Amino acid sequence: MSQPGPIVCRAIGVIRSEHTSPQETPIQPVYARGCRGYAEVCSEFAEGLKDLDGFSHVYLIYFFHQCREVKLTVKPFLQDVDRGIFSTRAPFRPNPIGLSVVELIKVEDNVVHFDGADILDGTPLLDIKPYTEKFDLYDVKKSGWQDEVDEETARVRGRREYKTK
Amino acid sequence: MSQPGPIVCRAIGVIRSEHTSPQETPIQPVYARGCRGYAEVCSEFAEGLKDLDGFSHVYLIYFFHQCREVKLTVKPFLQDVDRGIFSTRAPFRPNPIGLSVVELIKVEDNVVHFDGADILDGTPLLDIKPYTEKFDLYDVKKSGWQDEVDEETARVRGRREYKTK
Repeated sequence: MSQPGPIVCRAIGVIRSEHTSPQETPIQPVYARGCRGYAEVCSEFAEGLKDLDGFSHVYLIYFFHQCREVKLTVKPFLQDVDRGIFSTRAPFRPNPIGLSVVELIKVEDNVVHFDGADILDGTPLLDIKPYTEKFDLYDVKKSGWQDEVDEETARVRGRREYKTK
Repeated sequence: MSQPGPIVCRAIGVIRSEHTSPQETPIQPVYARGCRGYAEVCSEFAEGLKDLDGFSHVYLIYFFHQCREVKLTVKPFLQDVDRGIFSTRAPFRPNPIGLSVVELIKVEDNVVHFDGADILDGTPLLDIKPYTEKFDLYDVKKSGWQDEVDEETARVRGRREYKTK
C-alpha cells in the first residue's frame, strides 16, 4: 500500500471540563452523566455553529493530547483482557483521535455547553458533528467483548468509582 | 484563546468502495445499504484489528481528501437551506474529517469488509472504533433542521437518486 504523507489538522477550539487527571476522567459520556463541560470554538469558526442548537446530541471529535504512546493491544477500561486497540475506545491509537456523543445543553456565541463530559480539561477540539435520528441510530446486534461485561461492572469502572473505593 | 500548532495525523490505511465520483457517492451509510466496501489497514497496524470482528457495527474515521475548501455555512445534501457547517455532515469543515457508522461484514487479516459504503474510493483512513450498545445509542430528542426533512426526501437525496432522474 502506498504511504501517503502526513495529514495536518488544527485545533478549532478547546474542551473545558472538571477533569484534570486522566486517571480520574470517566470512560464515555454514558458514564459521565452530570459532568458538565463546554467546547470553546475559535471565534473565526463561530459562524459554523449556526443551527447546532436544534440537536439534542452532538459528536465531539478531539485529540488525545496527553497520549504519547501507541499500543496495538490494550486492556480496555472495562475489562482486564488484552484487546486489539481498534476494538476499544482507548486513547493509545495510531492516530490519537477521540470521539464522544454528548448531550447538548446550549450554544452561546462560540461556546457549546454539554453534559456527559468524559474528556480531559484542555483537550484540543477537532470537529463537532450532529448526532441524529436519521444518521446515527443502528440496530446493534453484537458488541464484541463488551457483551461479556455486565452493566454494573461497566458503570463502576466507567465512572472510575473503583479508584476511590 | 491560544493557537496551538498543527496536529499531525497519518493514514493508517485506505478505504475502497465502488464510488469514484463525489457527486454520485451516497450520503451516510443509512442511504448506502448494499454498497460494499473495505478498509485496507497498513500491515504495521493489523494487530490492532484483533477482536474487532465481534462487533456488528464500527465507526470509520477518515479524511475527506478531495475536499479543498472550507465553508462555514453550507446547503446540506438533504435540504436547500444554508446551515452552519457543524450542524451538518458536509465535508467542507475546518478539519475535513469524515465519520461513518458501517455494518461490519468480516475482518480478514488486515482488511475490514463492510456494508454501507458512503465513502469515496481511495479515501485515507484515520481510525476505526467499535460502535457499541453500551456507548453509542442515545435517546435523540431532536435532530434540528433534519426534523424538517421527511424520510422519502431524505432517502431520495441520500441515495443520490435525483441525479439520475
